[in-house]
Amino acid sequence: MERDTSELFEEFKELTASEFFRRNKQMLGFSGKIRSLTIVFHELITNSLDACEEAGILPDITIELKRLGKDHYLLKHADNGPGIPEDYITKVYCQMFAGSKFRNIQSRGQQGLGCSGCVLLSQMTTGQPVTIRSRYKDGDQIKGVEMKVKLDVKKNTGIILDRKEFETERTGSGIEIEFKDVSYSMSEQGAYEYIRRTVIGNPHARIVFKDPTGRKYTFERATDKIPPLPQEVLPHPKGVTADDIIYLCKSTNKKRFKNLLMDSLSRVSLKKIKEIEEATGIDMNKRPKSITWKEAEMVVEQFDKIKFMAPPTNGLKPIGSDQIEKGINEILLPEFSTALTRKPQAYRGGVSFIVEVGLAYGGKSGRKVGNSRKAEIMRFANRVPLTFDQGSCAITEALKSIDWRRYGIGELDNAPISVFVNIISTNVPYLSTGKQSVAPEEEIVREIRQATMKIARKLEKYLRAKKAAKNEEMRAKIFEDMVPVVIKQCALLAEKEIPDYEKVMDEVTHKAKIMDMKNRLQQPEIEAKEVIVEEPKMRVKEEILEDEQLQ
Amino acid sequence: MERDTSELFEEFKELTASEFFRRNKQMLGFSGKIRSLTIVFHELITNSLDACEEAGILPDITIELKRLGKDHYLLKHADNGPGIPEDYITKVYCQMFAGSKFRNIQSRGQQGLGCSGCVLLSQMTTGQPVTIRSRYKDGDQIKGVEMKVKLDVKKNTGIILDRKEFETERTGSGIEIEFKDVSYSMSEQGAYEYIRRTVIGNPHARIVFKDPTGRKYTFERATDKIPPLPQEVLPHPKGVTADDIIYLCKSTNKKRFKNLLMDSLSRVSLKKIKEIEEATGIDMNKRPKSITWKEAEMVVEQFDKIKFMAPPTNGLKPIGSDQIEKGINEILLPEFSTALTRKPQAYRGGVSFIVEVGLAYGGKSGRKVGNSRKAEIMRFANRVPLTFDQGSCAITEALKSIDWRRYGIGELDNAPISVFVNIISTNVPYLSTGKQSVAPEEEIVREIRQATMKIARKLEKYLRAKKAAKNEEMRAKIFEDMVPVVIKQCALLAEKEIPDYEKVMDEVTHKAKIMDMKNRLQQPEIEAKEVIVEEPKMRVKEEILEDEQLQ
Repeated sequence: MERDTSELFEEFKELTASEFFRRNKQMLGFSGKIRSLTIVFHELITNSLDACEEAGILPDITIELKRLGKDHYLLKHADNGPGIPEDYITKVYCQMFAGSKFRNIQSRGQQGLGCSGCVLLSQMTTGQPVTIRSRYKDGDQIKGVEMKVKLDVKKNTGIILDRKEFETERTGSGIEIEFKDVSYSMSEQGAYEYIRRTVIGNPHARIVFKDPTGRKYTFERATDKIPPLPQEVLPHPKGVTADDIIYLCKSTNKKRFKNLLMDSLSRVSLKKIKEIEEATGIDMNKRPKSITWKEAEMVVEQFDKIKFMAPPTNGLKPIGSDQIEKGINEILLPEFSTALTRKPQAYRGGVSFIVEVGLAYGGKSGRKVGNSRKAEIMRFANRVPLTFDQGSCAITEALKSIDWRRYGIGELDNAPISVFVNIISTNVPYLSTGKQSVAPEEEIVREIRQATMKIARKLEKYLRAKKAAKNEEMRAKIFEDMVPVVIKQCALLAEKEIPDYEKVMDEVTHKAKIMDMKNRLQQPEIEAKEVIVEEPKMRVKEEILEDEQLQ
Repeated sequence: MERDTSELFEEFKELTASEFFRRNKQMLGFSGKIRSLTIVFHELITNSLDACEEAGILPDITIELKRLGKDHYLLKHADNGPGIPEDYITKVYCQMFAGSKFRNIQSRGQQGLGCSGCVLLSQMTTGQPVTIRSRYKDGDQIKGVEMKVKLDVKKNTGIILDRKEFETERTGSGIEIEFKDVSYSMSEQGAYEYIRRTVIGNPHARIVFKDPTGRKYTFERATDKIPPLPQEVLPHPKGVTADDIIYLCKSTNKKRFKNLLMDSLSRVSLKKIKEIEEATGIDMNKRPKSITWKEAEMVVEQFDKIKFMAPPTNGLKPIGSDQIEKGINEILLPEFSTALTRKPQAYRGGVSFIVEVGLAYGGKSGRKVGNSRKAEIMRFANRVPLTFDQGSCAITEALKSIDWRRYGIGELDNAPISVFVNIISTNVPYLSTGKQSVAPEEEIVREIRQATMKIARKLEKYLRAKKAAKNEEMRAKIFEDMVPVVIKQCALLAEKEIPDYEKVMDEVTHKAKIMDMKNRLQQPEIEAKEVIVEEPKMRVKEEILEDEQLQ
């Protein structure tokens, strides 16, 4: 039975972004009770850290999670960031695909989906509005405004239900938001572990978290240094497509094509413009709007041929290998640790990125599974912990491609190690709107692989040295056992008195030690660094608050 | 240095869905040259199969891929579906989040992103418009219209550059679309393998594919049965949230709440309405628009308490275990194969789904890696092959959770088996807009696991029987070797003449065979089915077209 075409199109619909994600909330990462709550923490913390960083403020975040009933929670989240101007509040919290992060800047968020996603989930599960409190600078004044808002799914905009002003002396923003069908957990994928990892990746942040059982955790900052302001990095010509040029031409108010190119791209000088003009014959003084696809393609072809300086990387701010090692040592108390921050590289031709890796062996490294410890992979992108969807991630792919046996630790899965990987970029190529895994771009995978192999070699040297030391000890022991016998026999042979064992032994072992020292000094390539574990300076303070216990 | 709040919001932007995906094309699955082209095939084939199925037409798809230059291709794709009415052409091909599949119906597409995603990619890489040809029924007539269209990214709409009508006698739609930066490959993730798997999952489809080297592959249909029309399935009350009810109330033109519930949900009768009215005290004759969140929550609470018939499943059309086995046998020529279509189940309370599994052992089962064969997992959702992002998929998770050693095949990875899993549902919970993996919803993972264990048990029995047969053969051989000796010794003991070995042997082995038969008949539980591999009836015809060779 064939059906009429028009009949088939009766149900044709056009959705707003909010309607689309309402139907597909798992694409925002909201699937499963534990995961959904972790994603909410992720979006709000990420937003606070970004806001503070952009404004040059040391982040101070307070989070309180109250249990209101079974799978029903109230979350209060506040930061000391710059706040949000009143006109933008509904755009930030109630509009999908709206945000200030669509630039070439290193930031944790980059999609304009996070906060509105949380509001959508709250509304879908509780029907309640959300309370936003913003304290922001307006000229010389600091204004305070509190709003109750809802998200109009059909229009992808916000509805203000209530609004009042209040007086305040500091900036910051806060949200009170209710959820049902979510659940708090201490598991690896739960909200607590998310905060713990955030602190590893962001040693400059201070987070106070009151959990639903009344426990209050204070994660103190490990450094008081304000991280450098991230800077916008213009796209590099080698990473630009003809479509990008056409898009720039359509959006600009520049009058001349050459000015557009020089102002919108990095490393394009007047000299380069002349080179392009000569090679293509395109009049570089043309109005950008008149540039054709063909011409854009010719320009891109020249970009490919001409030599440019490498993409600027001053916009990229890595954590730094010292800080990573500090974080790892403090939390994992490992026997051996090392970290490495690599030089910037570029993927897709012109998007620069930096890979940072860390490795910890022994101590609390790895995940505890039953009685043994298995490998733990801690993935980060722009310092944000990635908790889910590890299977398809560039980081997982790179680590799995390494032949770990060459580094003396057999199968990766069963090694008692923690591997830390952080990718820094102005444009992390996430695989999905849930931002939990990084697309396996060839250059990124290769760079992670090489960085990890480099530090794995250090681990291997450490393990080899450790084994050698053990062997030497064993040999020494055998020697010690033999000495009295040899001495006795020698004395008998020489028909002398048997000397005092202890004295001879002391002499012999002293000489052996000196020889050992000399040997070691002659092998400078073995420079495995052993971590001296002092009493751990715990950054985490845990208290149980009596009056709020088990509410 | 603190920055002013307003300064931070200078760059605040609102994007259209097209602009968003232009910046994040990897979220549509477009990352990497091979993968990008496979995704294009996926979107176009999927769309054709859906269109034909909805119209009750046996699909006949022709695809031609021409190489125009390095990483530069022209794709011509056409089907015999119902076509697209002129008014909808730009909506289907040039608007994100627009489509006819936002219903509770089993269809391959469900997001309204596929076709417009392909047009976006074409435009981003070539700047060229796309040619659409639609032949559709308009009343008694069949109209033919050809359009050249572009996608206006900033507005998320289409622009018609050229339009002409043509005469035609049949329905169908076709597209001519150019791509750069993509690449055709015969690898497992390439376009050819995608078509091959599509044919396994859709034995009713005929696909003719001309590849860039001039080879023409004809995949004939294995069955002429028109698959049953998929039907819209109303949501089941057990899977409905308060938010869903509020959404229904806002969108309806029904005058009474009870009529809205009975017409929009399955299994809600007047009797159930009365039960709800009595339990909640809500006037079920109220206008839907006046229903509050509290009331909606009360109704959902009652939905949870009241017993309803299971969700209707007549809208779900599985492939069927016979067809799956046929497909597997034809392509893998296995030593053993089995398949199973399970009964419908529901996830998230009320979304019904069916799991189908198949298993092949030996022959061409598994993937060839070097000289050995490793396990191959073929994932399908609503008959569509899932090629990428297997790591996070419910299917992978379920299969990995099985202890395969219990089924006599050691580690899954190293077994020479192919596992086929298909999930049928009106709403497959994809993890991302790229639709390459299914969210690991608890009920789905459990169902795949159980279905697979059930067929794995059959494989185990087959392997056990095979081993037993081998042992028996060995025992028989030893026996055969011993017989002459025994006969000789017996004859010597009895002081008789040594009889003719051959004759005695014949008698003995005849008796043994009869005993064996009897034994087998007494063990009916071992019913492992051995596939008799005749000459393979190849559905794939391969020709090399002379005049178009290696163009």
